[in-house]
Amino acid sequence: MSSIREQAERAKNAKAGLAALDRAKKDRALAAIAAALRARAPEIQRENELDLAAARMAGLAPALIDRLRMDQKAIESTARAVEHVMTLPDPVASRGPMQRMPSGIQVGRQRLPLGVIAIVYESRPNVTVDAASLCLKSGNTALLRGGKEAAHTNRILGSVIAGALSASGLDPDAVQIIPPGDRDGVRELVSLSGLVDLAIPRGGEGLIRFVVEHARVPVVQHFLGVCHLFLDAGCDVEMAKNLALDGKVRRPGVCNALECLLVDAMDAARLLPPVAGALLAEGVELRGDARTRELVSAAKAATDEDWGKEYLAKILAVRVVDGLDGALAHVGRYGSNHSEAICTETFSHAERWLREVDASCVLVNASTRFNDGGELGLGAEIGISTTKLHAYGPMGLESLTAEKWVVIGGGQIRG
Amino acid sequence: MSSIREQAERAKNAKAGLAALDRAKKDRALAAIAAALRARAPEIQRENELDLAAARMAGLAPALIDRLRMDQKAIESTARAVEHVMTLPDPVASRGPMQRMPSGIQVGRQRLPLGVIAIVYESRPNVTVDAASLCLKSGNTALLRGGKEAAHTNRILGSVIAGALSASGLDPDAVQIIPPGDRDGVRELVSLSGLVDLAIPRGGEGLIRFVVEHARVPVVQHFLGVCHLFLDAGCDVEMAKNLALDGKVRRPGVCNALECLLVDAMDAARLLPPVAGALLAEGVELRGDARTRELVSAAKAATDEDWGKEYLAKILAVRVVDGLDGALAHVGRYGSNHSEAICTETFSHAERWLREVDASCVLVNASTRFNDGGELGLGAEIGISTTKLHAYGPMGLESLTAEKWVVIGGGQIRG
Repeated sequence: MSSIREQAERAKNAKAGLAALDRAKKDRALAAIAAALRARAPEIQRENELDLAAARMAGLAPALIDRLRMDQKAIESTARAVEHVMTLPDPVASRGPMQRMPSGIQVGRQRLPLGVIAIVYESRPNVTVDAASLCLKSGNTALLRGGKEAAHTNRILGSVIAGALSASGLDPDAVQIIPPGDRDGVRELVSLSGLVDLAIPRGGEGLIRFVVEHARVPVVQHFLGVCHLFLDAGCDVEMAKNLALDGKVRRPGVCNALECLLVDAMDAARLLPPVAGALLAEGVELRGDARTRELVSAAKAATDEDWGKEYLAKILAVRVVDGLDGALAHVGRYGSNHSEAICTETFSHAERWLREVDASCVLVNASTRFNDGGELGLGAEIGISTTKLHAYGPMGLESLTAEKWVVIGGGQIRG
Repeated sequence: MSSIREQAERAKNAKAGLAALDRAKKDRALAAIAAALRARAPEIQRENELDLAAARMAGLAPALIDRLRMDQKAIESTARAVEHVMTLPDPVASRGPMQRMPSGIQVGRQRLPLGVIAIVYESRPNVTVDAASLCLKSGNTALLRGGKEAAHTNRILGSVIAGALSASGLDPDAVQIIPPGDRDGVRELVSLSGLVDLAIPRGGEGLIRFVVEHARVPVVQHFLGVCHLFLDAGCDVEMAKNLALDGKVRRPGVCNALECLLVDAMDAARLLPPVAGALLAEGVELRGDARTRELVSAAKAATDEDWGKEYLAKILAVRVVDGLDGALAHVGRYGSNHSEAICTETFSHAERWLREVDASCVLVNASTRFNDGGELGLGAEIGISTTKLHAYGPMGLESLTAEKWVVIGGGQIRG
């Protein structure tokens, strides 16, 4: 048996015990993990230094090296994130309302963990701890397969977690680190049908496509965040400016950042110059269609490649469209089912936007950056799904569980 | 482009139009389908005769030929099922409670259709109409790929549905029949990632395993129904008898029928003889372990193959186990995550059963036969999922939709 399959078998064996745990036990284990992170911080930093040195040797970009870093501050914020998960409600075994049916039986639903969750991710080692704590709190066992760049850091984090689990009387097999290797290991992990219940890839498009292509287990995927903001005729120009700046400038590298601004032709002469001016003043490169460039001379010419493009940089595509229908058509064709916002004062347009746009989060007069587990009230998220099955949008603890039907009777038969 | 891909492209193009339909329009189309089924009944029966004749020629088992039959009565009951779907609430675009977050935005969820649903099924041609009406009501486009045996019947049913859709002003591409052929066609259909949003195989284990193996789109699967009834020490013997008879005798060929009876050793001498006697009197063949056969001499000896076996016949495995823990261990090992019932008077045992058994439906003092969309209040079901992702248990209209996040603000930014 391969070592990956053997780890998955152990995860499966740990499943029932983990599913049966009460919240108090799980919270105590989370507290132990947070404490162990702090206590063993010097060790973690030492191992992290090995990864950082290797990354520098390999000539990784400074931004990537930054993502890899687990310094005192990063360890502390990771420990706090674990403590935050402690404060969140435990969804497991919560039972919804019971309804009495004509047959006399009472019917309802009760939440249960999904089982074994395989998470395949790149770079950031804090994902190891975040994913472990969310899986643990929701009663799932976790198989965590991080990237080669973070191999030393992930290994020590895995040992910190396992130690804390054992010390809390929990099965250390509940959270296992899968050592990194080539993609054959990923392929094997996501093909373990009957052992792995869900695969969550977190990383670049290449990794996600690879997992989807080779998976024989269900996958929650999140390819791209190509988010649009549509400025409807008659909307408030100050609000439009704020939403555009917040979406594009604050954190251009995140998936809920704005990538394309759409403006209704009817009102573009009023809206576009001030909004574009504010963006240009913040150093944003604008790539506009012909009608945009008539109004904003500083905009470069957009090509067909600019529509549907995820820049993850201070670049914004801008297009003048014909009314709400034009905006809906553009978003339907080029959107990525992630986050789509309208800025409007027209009630029926807001309602049509909410209904007709197919995205995990549709927003009226709010920044696309609100598509985030914390902002939407989930407390924490393990990923954002842009496929509709099982979960659509940020996945919190509840999305790591399923509902079974519960029937309580007094001897009823169907006859 | 292959004809299957071409049909899927047309289904994708019909998606947005269908998702935007109001309930009234969909209900009118359903009424038109029911009316057309009745009006064109002679035509349907003529085509069905061709399938029946071919089935007889091929020497199909009488039970299979029966399942294929679309006589006047079957057509009428199919039309009534369509009319029943009309009466069910439309889940699309219903918005849940909106919660105001600390940032000031309002957050909630709104239902939307999944998109294009491919259903791969065997034999029964009424599935064609049932699936079409459930997909239509939930705003999804359907690609229906039935079996070769029902080719003529399914083709005429497809034409009846398409005619009714056109006459109601709906896009006839919303429901398309994929002509049967070899399994390569199934393989192609379920690999159309980006076109097909969900595949639902309905049929034998072979078909389902084939779909799961070759799918590149999400699959809702239902392999087996190996349902257990555990008779707890101290339970009511009359109730136990009724639940066992209802589960095994009324319709032994369905997936929520009972396949294995478990009895607590502590109380087996009181419970087993009368329950076994009642089953034997109804012509059920019992296959028991050694402890069972000590109490029920008429039981045959069970072998290891009898545990976890789906007989779909008047055969029942019987095993004496050591208390609730023994029953939970047996169900955990041999159950199929379908329907698992306990007959008990002990409160804590009922609660442990509900919490610890991993099945789409867990029942206390009620027949396993209640795991059915109609009995659980769904109105109608398109299948029963025994995988936890997206849906677990009977899938009604709501399970054919997803929820997107809705954010309504007054210009909020995250900053």
